[in-house]
Amino acid sequence: MKPPALTAAALAERFGLTLRGADRTITGVAALASATPEQLSFLANPRYRAQLAHTHAGTVVLCATDADVFAGTALLTENPYVAFAKISALFAPGQESIPGIHPTAVIDATAVIDPTASIGPHATVGARSRIGAGATIGPGCVIGPDCEVGDGCLLVARATLVTRVRLGQRVLIHPGAVLGADGFGLAMDAGRWIKVPQLGGVVVGDDCEIGANTTIDRGALDDTVLEQDVRLDNQIQIGHNVHIGAHTAMAGCSAVAGSARIGRRCLIGGGAGILGHLELCDGVVITAMSLVTHSINVPGEYSSGTPLMDNRSWRKNAARFRQLDRIARRRAGDAKDHE
Amino acid sequence: MKPPALTAAALAERFGLTLRGADRTITGVAALASATPEQLSFLANPRYRAQLAHTHAGTVVLCATDADVFAGTALLTENPYVAFAKISALFAPGQESIPGIHPTAVIDATAVIDPTASIGPHATVGARSRIGAGATIGPGCVIGPDCEVGDGCLLVARATLVTRVRLGQRVLIHPGAVLGADGFGLAMDAGRWIKVPQLGGVVVGDDCEIGANTTIDRGALDDTVLEQDVRLDNQIQIGHNVHIGAHTAMAGCSAVAGSARIGRRCLIGGGAGILGHLELCDGVVITAMSLVTHSINVPGEYSSGTPLMDNRSWRKNAARFRQLDRIARRRAGDAKDHE
Amino acid sequence: MKPPALTAAALAERFGLTLRGADRTITGVAALASATPEQLSFLANPRYRAQLAHTHAGTVVLCATDADVFAGTALLTENPYVAFAKISALFAPGQESIPGIHPTAVIDATAVIDPTASIGPHATVGARSRIGAGATIGPGCVIGPDCEVGDGCLLVARATLVTRVRLGQRVLIHPGAVLGADGFGLAMDAGRWIKVPQLGGVVVGDDCEIGANTTIDRGALDDTVLEQDVRLDNQIQIGHNVHIGAHTAMAGCSAVAGSARIGRRCLIGGGAGILGHLELCDGVVITAMSLVTHSINVPGEYSSGTPLMDNRSWRKNAARFRQLDRIARRRAGDAKDHE
Repeated sequence: MKPPALTAAALAERFGLTLRGADRTITGVAALASATPEQLSFLANPRYRAQLAHTHAGTVVLCATDADVFAGTALLTENPYVAFAKISALFAPGQESIPGIHPTAVIDATAVIDPTASIGPHATVGARSRIGAGATIGPGCVIGPDCEVGDGCLLVARATLVTRVRLGQRVLIHPGAVLGADGFGLAMDAGRWIKVPQLGGVVVGDDCEIGANTTIDRGALDDTVLEQDVRLDNQIQIGHNVHIGAHTAMAGCSAVAGSARIGRRCLIGGGAGILGHLELCDGVVITAMSLVTHSINVPGEYSSGTPLMDNRSWRKNAARFRQLDRIARRRAGDAKDHE
Repeated sequence: MKPPALTAAALAERFGLTLRGADRTITGVAALASATPEQLSFLANPRYRAQLAHTHAGTVVLCATDADVFAGTALLTENPYVAFAKISALFAPGQESIPGIHPTAVIDATAVIDPTASIGPHATVGARSRIGAGATIGPGCVIGPDCEVGDGCLLVARATLVTRVRLGQRVLIHPGAVLGADGFGLAMDAGRWIKVPQLGGVVVGDDCEIGANTTIDRGALDDTVLEQDVRLDNQIQIGHNVHIGAHTAMAGCSAVAGSARIGRRCLIGGGAGILGHLELCDGVVITAMSLVTHSINVPGEYSSGTPLMDNRSWRKNAARFRQLDRIARRRAGDAKDHE
Repeated sequence: MKPPALTAAALAERFGLTLRGADRTITGVAALASATPEQLSFLANPRYRAQLAHTHAGTVVLCATDADVFAGTALLTENPYVAFAKISALFAPGQESIPGIHPTAVIDATAVIDPTASIGPHATVGARSRIGAGATIGPGCVIGPDCEVGDGCLLVARATLVTRVRLGQRVLIHPGAVLGADGFGLAMDAGRWIKVPQLGGVVVGDDCEIGANTTIDRGALDDTVLEQDVRLDNQIQIGHNVHIGAHTAMAGCSAVAGSARIGRRCLIGGGAGILGHLELCDGVVITAMSLVTHSINVPGEYSSGTPLMDNRSWRKNAARFRQLDRIARRRAGDAKDHE
């Protein structure tokens, strides 16, 4: 696809930015370090401010406070990352999907496929499932029975909706994601595990995004629920009957155990874990690889873990962690001695 | 599928429960908070005891000690979760699999498929592999060469058995699971990695369950082994030559490095890690996100990590962890001064 | 496949080993504990030295310093693991791939497939993608548009290259791996997330290995890069624009957040995490489940976390971690008192 040619002035008008300097034609977007004079770049992370002086980018989106360092055409805004996201979307190639059902796809006779939907090669759609208008089911996807895929959804490739999964509109699912597998429900009976049937489903709100190889189990009785605009990175595990509030974002490899309830606008760091049956209120931030072991009812940032050290120092300090209670007790004893 | 209608009295007789109150017809199962008078619910987790007073469930399975709070029809038992699991299985729809080989499946000429097995759309079965009676190979599954799938196994969809994987009877494998990939065996030779061939296989005992996107590598020389009734949740990683004892259950995102040996009836918490070549005796419990760095020969519960705190407090305390050895030494010095 | 029969003397000559004892025919390789007199085994990990006295292996590859414990035919070398890797490769069955395109594969009209490549059942190859000489695309793989697969690559099964993924030569990708999915780029705009288009690709150098269900996102603007001979185990997550130096190896379930730069010959332990935008110099070792929160510019071993303890002791010590800053301050106060 040949990228469109736009001008800095046109972008300024379209997205409400302030143009400073000469107008320029823009043929694409790039990072500060690699952009050419025909390309537009941006500065959002102060970490990269020093690159402004050396960039070959002809046009840069940035805050007014950073603009003095840059000699070229500037598009000024209070939120350069948002403006850049919108601009670069104009240059992004979309998934090339053709309406209709690929001849290798296998569609159950009771499934209902909107004529504007695209069903890719080697996809399967199960009994009583419905695929909405403009939705794309990429190659190798498996849609089991009793699922609903809303209008404009995009399942890139090799995603699986096992059963009773209902997606809202414009949900984006990356390859390898599995929604609606059995929750991990087991009861110990006479020395053996017996399986607790998982009778619920998964409900995913509008505009959610589900990362590659992420798994979301279906509920045991009620549904597992993601409200609208929830954003899940890759390799996240969501247990059965979890409820995640709108606009919450979770970074890669984080995990939520069964029946936990996460509020709206939370940010869960990479590799973080949340134990089952807990509740997190709105606006909670969990830093990377922390373990949440109790409910949280005050918004704010929470952490666990210890700092990284060279291994020799770490061994010494970690060994003392074993003695921490004893050390603290002795300390308290000393304090008494001093009294 | 229309759910069957059963009565409380019939369930009591079938599963050895004590009926208290009027007999009732039951058309389904549901959670306490959402059940209707025609549905049966249960109380197993004391956390939800308060819901008993408000539930609309007509029938509830629970302990005698909880029964006074509930006015409706009660089915009394010492283990309500087990009884509920058995009852709800009567209402669970099974996977709709039809015996025979789907026309889009690709079966090697040397593979042997039992006529009662079901091979789904776009599945492949490799050379010399055998699929047992009543087994279901769901859509998109890849069974490589020299594999065995026992009677009554269910591979839901898109599971992969790479090579030399032998499943016992009634093994349940969820989508995206990969069994029998190369173990991570590398040797450094003149500044470059060379690959150590992985010549073993994977042996999975009867009644095991393997979660979505879980990976179990095949052995380097001998096999990787799961004894019977091992239950693995989603996104678990099992390294080559690991041996897991019968009835052990592992929660999501946990991982076991190569050649570790885990006993019977162990419980491994979510996100926990077990280093290579270690041995855990029977009956070990590892709490979530703990790292096991040495062998364990005493049954019981083990943990590592630090508690969750607000980030400001955590930063202060974590900074002190760096000084822990110094603090402890000074303390010891003080103690000497006092002598 | 019938394994070849070789002799100890022939192996000694081929791989530069010293033969001690009688020459023997070798029909296969096995672990010390299970080898038969016709098989060759090895000792590399001192943990298994005691097995030398009892092994039935006819031939063992080992260090001269260990040779006195073993009475049979010995092949002496300074690096038994490397020698064993090379020898056992002679006995390893290769993937049985036949050049040509399976009739069920779906190939875009603009894709270019080398006639010596093998495209398996139910694979798809997208627009403008190229598959090199001798490459194998296993069953169920999805190669999206604008990808390049170098000569001799092996995608075992069900791997996905989403778009703009360029593989060097002899890259090995295990099932379920997803390369080139969208990086996790989001900007908060008026209370909702908007997606930052991910316009870059993924570049993978020669001789890299990518584990089962591992995910490598494509870059936001520039590419995500793995230099040559990088070895990734299963279930690893690599964020967008990460750069990994040559010969670095990462163990299972580790993760690297966006734009981090990892040097050459690093070893990243299982479950370890590396935060975004950090730099690790060459030769850094991170132990299992450590979290890297700052850049590292000195080679060596680094760790975080606390040691495993029985849960009762852990609870006591972990509770004191909450008070660590207070304890340290009091200590400092005491020290002052003593002055």
